[in-house]
Amino acid sequence: MKTNPGRFFEDYTLGEVIPHAVPRTVTAGERALYHALYPARGALYSSDEFARACGLPGSPIDDLAAFHLVFGKTVPDISLNAVANLGYAEGRWLAPVWPGDTLTARSTVIGLKQNSNGKTGVVWVRTEGLNQYGAIILSYVRWVMVRKGNPEAPAPETVVPELSDAVAAGDLAVPEGLDFTGYDFAQAGEPHAWGDYDVGERIDHVDGSTVEEAEHMLATRLWQNTAKVHFDATFRPDGQRLIYGGHVISMARALSFNGLANAQMIVALNGGAHANPCFSGTTIKAWSEVLDRAETSAPGVGALRLRLVATSGGEPFTLRGEDGKYLSHVLLDLDYWALVPR
Amino acid sequence: MKTNPGRFFEDYTLGEVIPHAVPRTVTAGERALYHALYPARGALYSSDEFARACGLPGSPIDDLAAFHLVFGKTVPDISLNAVANLGYAEGRWLAPVWPGDTLTARSTVIGLKQNSNGKTGVVWVRTEGLNQYGAIILSYVRWVMVRKGNPEAPAPETVVPELSDAVAAGDLAVPEGLDFTGYDFAQAGEPHAWGDYDVGERIDHVDGSTVEEAEHMLATRLWQNTAKVHFDATFRPDGQRLIYGGHVISMARALSFNGLANAQMIVALNGGAHANPCFSGTTIKAWSEVLDRAETSAPGVGALRLRLVATSGGEPFTLRGEDGKYLSHVLLDLDYWALVPR
Amino acid sequence: MKTNPGRFFEDYTLGEVIPHAVPRTVTAGERALYHALYPARGALYSSDEFARACGLPGSPIDDLAAFHLVFGKTVPDISLNAVANLGYAEGRWLAPVWPGDTLTARSTVIGLKQNSNGKTGVVWVRTEGLNQYGAIILSYVRWVMVRKGNPEAPAPETVVPELSDAVAAGDLAVPEGLDFTGYDFAQAGEPHAWGDYDVGERIDHVDGSTVEEAEHMLATRLWQNTAKVHFDATFRPDGQRLIYGGHVISMARALSFNGLANAQMIVALNGGAHANPCFSGTTIKAWSEVLDRAETSAPGVGALRLRLVATSGGEPFTLRGEDGKYLSHVLLDLDYWALVPR
Repeated sequence: MKTNPGRFFEDYTLGEVIPHAVPRTVTAGERALYHALYPARGALYSSDEFARACGLPGSPIDDLAAFHLVFGKTVPDISLNAVANLGYAEGRWLAPVWPGDTLTARSTVIGLKQNSNGKTGVVWVRTEGLNQYGAIILSYVRWVMVRKGNPEAPAPETVVPELSDAVAAGDLAVPEGLDFTGYDFAQAGEPHAWGDYDVGERIDHVDGSTVEEAEHMLATRLWQNTAKVHFDATFRPDGQRLIYGGHVISMARALSFNGLANAQMIVALNGGAHANPCFSGTTIKAWSEVLDRAETSAPGVGALRLRLVATSGGEPFTLRGEDGKYLSHVLLDLDYWALVPR
Repeated sequence: MKTNPGRFFEDYTLGEVIPHAVPRTVTAGERALYHALYPARGALYSSDEFARACGLPGSPIDDLAAFHLVFGKTVPDISLNAVANLGYAEGRWLAPVWPGDTLTARSTVIGLKQNSNGKTGVVWVRTEGLNQYGAIILSYVRWVMVRKGNPEAPAPETVVPELSDAVAAGDLAVPEGLDFTGYDFAQAGEPHAWGDYDVGERIDHVDGSTVEEAEHMLATRLWQNTAKVHFDATFRPDGQRLIYGGHVISMARALSFNGLANAQMIVALNGGAHANPCFSGTTIKAWSEVLDRAETSAPGVGALRLRLVATSGGEPFTLRGEDGKYLSHVLLDLDYWALVPR
Repeated sequence: MKTNPGRFFEDYTLGEVIPHAVPRTVTAGERALYHALYPARGALYSSDEFARACGLPGSPIDDLAAFHLVFGKTVPDISLNAVANLGYAEGRWLAPVWPGDTLTARSTVIGLKQNSNGKTGVVWVRTEGLNQYGAIILSYVRWVMVRKGNPEAPAPETVVPELSDAVAAGDLAVPEGLDFTGYDFAQAGEPHAWGDYDVGERIDHVDGSTVEEAEHMLATRLWQNTAKVHFDATFRPDGQRLIYGGHVISMARALSFNGLANAQMIVALNGGAHANPCFSGTTIKAWSEVLDRAETSAPGVGALRLRLVATSGGEPFTLRGEDGKYLSHVLLDLDYWALVPR
């Protein structure tokens, strides 16, 4: 058989390094599309001049575009037969991606646990994205539930990796040269600096964006994500396509500009859950909560740890029901660190 | 509150200069998207080689893309609480925008008039778009009706600016170096030169383009326009989003290629009205009328003053009913100057 | 009349060379859009680094994007009044198109045959795409059935060109410098080399992609294709737009990555039929058949002649009914040569 059937649970071995296919050169074209697909307005990613005034050589490719490009490469090897995308941890953006860079990706299997039903198992991988110089630009852990292809295949030894609840502030990688001491708040769009945000503060981002089939498919294809459920209407009786969770992440992050315009760079992904599936016609809204604050050694640069919640409506700031489960209007619960001018 | 509530009528002061946020570097990516979103075929904006043969260093970013990028920046400060976009005047494109340029924008309040109902008022602003060298690339006047946030706020002194009916031919800014003496009509797509158009002549552009939700949202996001009504289906009972008026302008202008292929560069916006709202599913058609002709001092370059009417159908060349009001199928009535080879 | 009514059958003269309008500079922006519109994953067109490792100066513009750009230019002159697009033959890609290149096109009338009904006729043209250096980058024959404008116009002398069934293997143009001896199969996505494919072998590409109106219109506009039926919903009672056949070609070709990831470059189009029309909502699937194999003189480079069939469902590998006609689920039957690492 010439086509890729995807890997099943028994096909993964602890410690195995899986090189992912299809390197990708990223350009101003991908940036423009990102700005058409999402209401992204972060000045650092919109203007070369603004980025240069912040000590960078130019405007980098949006952090989440880099994430999606790396993530997309892993799909044919990691999640083609996945039943569920269970979580993320220890994600760190280690260097900006510049127009002209070529990205590759690889994943290392760091955990395996067959489920008691004998039909599925959980696979933990650490995925690394690299640029053309071999530098790791992004590293994160993801775990997915994967079907077994052969139910008779023996269960592997159970290894569950120990994962941090959050990336420690001291481990945040601030891009070389970044300097927010001359930060132009007026051009960035909001006056609120790092010191204006309190731990526990919550922000309703107010704006909403209704998603169309054409949009999420354009986005998901752009990242070369091959999961069939995002593209093939025959998978579901209603003809809808399941929207790639990363589309919801990018939409919510872009909507969070309104109130967090100065949370410029994402430098860590502490965790995240796709609480409910998202389909076209949904009007995505977002709210944030400040979870933590930290200083960095870079001039004028602070860090905020933020919860970003995407919803399909419902009351802002509601998250879980009395049973502890996510409410039905919650699409995403993301925990990340961003760099903010002090 | 961290989010931007927008300005209300009482928040504007005569003479105030409002710097708009989020500078934007424009690239070949934005150009490609413009050409996917609109059936734009003007040779000067399609081919670097054609542009160089016309004395320019390369193909500029489409004039209307530059307009939308500047306009989009003004929305959070000018029209977030607008009830209606009332008009444009004295628009001049003063220099081409090149791939790699970074645009910023500012507006000066030049007029204020509270309405007799005491609940709304009209704000006139002169908006200027600038490139990274500080050169003004676009300047236009827009007036909008804005809600008062506090009905008790005192009315400002009424100042209504005097605005020209049209930019005088002598005030048209012809791009430096533009030379149409060797203009290649065959490559441009039509044989009709400046002298072939008569004042009063009307052209039915024949083609139609049906608009989808995904398309106008991609376009409007690309211009970083944040008006909620264009993106959020929950604003209207029918779930439709109001299409950004600029999307109709660009679509009609692109459709007008068929008959006006040589009306290459827009250099002035004399006036314009969004006569009726446009929603997805509409098939946009267009017709033009030659309003005036002028010579310029640039070699081989003439100017035509054109009326561009976008419709959702109806008989070509019909505009207003017996009551003087726009007919229901009229979407746009635009008055502009374009440069044409003589 | 200033608008282009298109040519009618009697407007073509044997031997006539028709220069097509609107030159186009292609950039990384068009490449990014191609990768958003189609699930294209060929490594040579995705990564500058991969392309350089294969002896090229960088990643070329996708072959089919070059085809669509050339094809689009011909529409106003060749197929605006076409009743049917009847066939392709003798297509050869003669040189890669690089970002920054400017394409033009011209067609030579090589055959004419009035139909017996006296109302239509068949026009054969050889179309050539050229870059800014005047080099022919693509050449193919297409024939279309065109309406007569004046039924009284006399029939021209019937000339039916002799066309090859397939481009001979020895006539395939391998891009200068192409060298697959160090080809990285892991990065390309599949281990199957030229020698792993047998003549007669058939591959079901498994994946499907459901097409939306917004997507095919974005694509077709990007190629500056002006055929009204693709854009104007008022042409059909159901409001659907006929999808440009080239959209189906690109979608099917991209889907064929799954099983033909190493069929990197299209170098010849032997023939093709748009068997049934395609409309939005269709889930396009694809299967391929290996028709022939050939060696080339370039290091490590072999060629496969492939049949690519796009369907709207149905059983894979079914093509024609007992009556010899295409089955109703067959959208496209394409015959092409691709370069594959040996």
